[in-house]
Amino acid sequence: MLIGSVGNHQGAWRRPTSRVEESNDLSLFADIAQAAERAKIHTLFIADGLTLDRDQVRTKPFAGLEPITLLSALAAVTEKIGFVASVSTTFSEPYNVARQLASLDHISRGRAAWNIVTSAWGEINFGGKPLPSHSERYRIADEYVRAILALWDSWEPGSVVNDRAAGIFADPEKIHPIDFVGEHFTIAGPLNVPRSPQGRPVIAQAGSSSDGKAFAAKYAEIVFTAQQSLTESQAFYRDLREHVAAVGRNPDDVKILPGVSPILGRTEKEAIELHRELVNLIDVESGLVRLSRQLGHVDLSDLDVDGTIPAERLPDIEQVQGRQSRYGVFKQLALEEKFTIRQLIEMEVSSSGHWVPVGSVEQIADQLEERFQQGGADGFILLPSFYPEGFTYLTDELVPLLQERGLFQEEYSGDTLRERLRLPQPSPVTPLQRS
Amino acid sequence: MLIGSVGNHQGAWRRPTSRVEESNDLSLFADIAQAAERAKIHTLFIADGLTLDRDQVRTKPFAGLEPITLLSALAAVTEKIGFVASVSTTFSEPYNVARQLASLDHISRGRAAWNIVTSAWGEINFGGKPLPSHSERYRIADEYVRAILALWDSWEPGSVVNDRAAGIFADPEKIHPIDFVGEHFTIAGPLNVPRSPQGRPVIAQAGSSSDGKAFAAKYAEIVFTAQQSLTESQAFYRDLREHVAAVGRNPDDVKILPGVSPILGRTEKEAIELHRELVNLIDVESGLVRLSRQLGHVDLSDLDVDGTIPAERLPDIEQVQGRQSRYGVFKQLALEEKFTIRQLIEMEVSSSGHWVPVGSVEQIADQLEERFQQGGADGFILLPSFYPEGFTYLTDELVPLLQERGLFQEEYSGDTLRERLRLPQPSPVTPLQRS
Repeated sequence: MLIGSVGNHQGAWRRPTSRVEESNDLSLFADIAQAAERAKIHTLFIADGLTLDRDQVRTKPFAGLEPITLLSALAAVTEKIGFVASVSTTFSEPYNVARQLASLDHISRGRAAWNIVTSAWGEINFGGKPLPSHSERYRIADEYVRAILALWDSWEPGSVVNDRAAGIFADPEKIHPIDFVGEHFTIAGPLNVPRSPQGRPVIAQAGSSSDGKAFAAKYAEIVFTAQQSLTESQAFYRDLREHVAAVGRNPDDVKILPGVSPILGRTEKEAIELHRELVNLIDVESGLVRLSRQLGHVDLSDLDVDGTIPAERLPDIEQVQGRQSRYGVFKQLALEEKFTIRQLIEMEVSSSGHWVPVGSVEQIADQLEERFQQGGADGFILLPSFYPEGFTYLTDELVPLLQERGLFQEEYSGDTLRERLRLPQPSPVTPLQRS
Repeated sequence: MLIGSVGNHQGAWRRPTSRVEESNDLSLFADIAQAAERAKIHTLFIADGLTLDRDQVRTKPFAGLEPITLLSALAAVTEKIGFVASVSTTFSEPYNVARQLASLDHISRGRAAWNIVTSAWGEINFGGKPLPSHSERYRIADEYVRAILALWDSWEPGSVVNDRAAGIFADPEKIHPIDFVGEHFTIAGPLNVPRSPQGRPVIAQAGSSSDGKAFAAKYAEIVFTAQQSLTESQAFYRDLREHVAAVGRNPDDVKILPGVSPILGRTEKEAIELHRELVNLIDVESGLVRLSRQLGHVDLSDLDVDGTIPAERLPDIEQVQGRQSRYGVFKQLALEEKFTIRQLIEMEVSSSGHWVPVGSVEQIADQLEERFQQGGADGFILLPSFYPEGFTYLTDELVPLLQERGLFQEEYSGDTLRERLRLPQPSPVTPLQRS
């Protein structure tokens, strides 16, 4: 489940029951985490960005708490739920990040995961040099991940012995330098924190571009994705599993989780009314700015928001240096589904392009079940559209119905997130990966 | 109070009641934090280092949990105690660190402080280029701190308005780019997290070298230091306050806190026995390596550990590129106090050169009171020598005695750490500091 402080829909915070005044307060996030844990949700996931858009912040709450810092606090007030922190490989130091994630894994007793992001923007706050190209960012990320995995493996299992009588805390023979020398990173190691409960925190990734899929095939254990229709989901699911098999991994070791932000009601009518209420709270002007950015900074200001976007305005996907995968979703909706600009804005500000089914709890459960049973998903990332009621529909109505159908866990199993997701244990000490 | 997982004395973990098996587990740190809070300790402080010495880890437990990550978890299980996180200005990105500290300040509701360290080692894990010189590291730190303060000030007080009816979350006119362009850092801003409860988390610093004191005079609100004797404490205290006054700040706005790691007993005899027990648990061989590093990597291996160090072995302080201030302490003990190598090792491994008085609770309280009343300290950083009993002596015996004498708070006052330390509020929006 992806969590934001007030919900993923732009209008969510304006509802009278929203807790927008607490949008940076731990109590709000702790309530969400504990309620999600009661519902046996597998993980909480925090998306991230490294810039602030002053125009956007005018109309949409912006919490911006740094993911690892926030998730560590939530680890202290929960027992079982997992935590997926987004951290950029373009704007951070791998030694620091390897250590923070290992620390989160210790603090949570084995519930940490890292969502690898390459950052489509952020350079203005990190030196001001031009952002590396999309493919160069993935090359940097590849080196970065190899360094981090080597650091996590630098303390062998059993390296800490705690022998009071002999005065031996750890066996230095089992703690290895990594001597990583790459094009971008040079790291001697070992990591300055003992091996964490999972050894390797779980690796998540969300790129669905061609570079992104190749990267996911090599490293990802969870893949976040965004498709609207069953057919597209199935195509992505098949394609990614083929990529995974092609690099010699078992496709079942990669969990493919499309995002979904259902708008639920006890009846279809209630859901439609809730959806209308949320749409009426959208700020079209700032939504247009967000949509334009999502489309590679194309200028839409001269167009009628109730008309469509001419095809010649939308560049080829390869020319987009931002988030190529999400661009593809919007371009397809604009050109093939003939969405109006207003509809695209609604899509962007309600769920950033994720699937937004509207319906009764039963109808939504049917749609999720279909997508799961028909080879479109191994599970879903739920994006609660608004707190608290929209979230409570998910935890207290949708999840119990899925449990009744035998589609959702009734208890947490295993000792770590890795075990709960039925992911393979990484081999205790992989051969150290030198670049 | 400085916290490590098993105590600051090298031998602490070998005592039968130590919780070394939990040395990376949150439950141990949570117990410490909650007990310290019951005792009304002002802050918990975590020291840090960015390398792992495999020889040292053989004989001394190494937790290494990243300070902000750990303190954020502790913020979730406490209410009042403050948190001082050490973060390096040499090996991290200011935008990330400004944000993590602001996040910790939000999560703790105004209890965050940053201990600025310039890192005397770490380059092997951050690119492998030579470490910048001592004075160059301070020049980088100066720019780094100015950038971070500007980021913290980038959201004015009152910038978040939460106006549901108008659909206005924040007023972009009150959120400012910082346009920081320095020699080392270029940051457009604004910060991607709203202004935190303290506005500016409290600034701590520990350098006592000439560069360090000049730096502290400009920025520090808490200064950690290490002196053995009352006379030296008084000299440092006077000198630093003069430095502060010289840059136009009020010396009372800087709290000078020497470290002290008392070994306490209910009687003097019990304390002496505890001290002997701990000394007997020291590993001399690895202690010698630590001492050598503390002395600028001087080779001591050919010398008798029960003899003294010849003066010609010890370089002038200016030639030392590591931690100059701590070097000065050890050099003075070696040459003027004629400490043997074994005594210096004991000093290093029991408290890293901090003052280690041994005595009854009454005797220790007398010594702390004298140093406080005689112009040697505004307070102290307690370094518990061992957990749990040595720590409990501090919280359950020493603190109540100091409270009886009217020397220690009986309740937390104020809403934030800044208020509890009686530090001035930074002006709401300082003129943006452009480089």
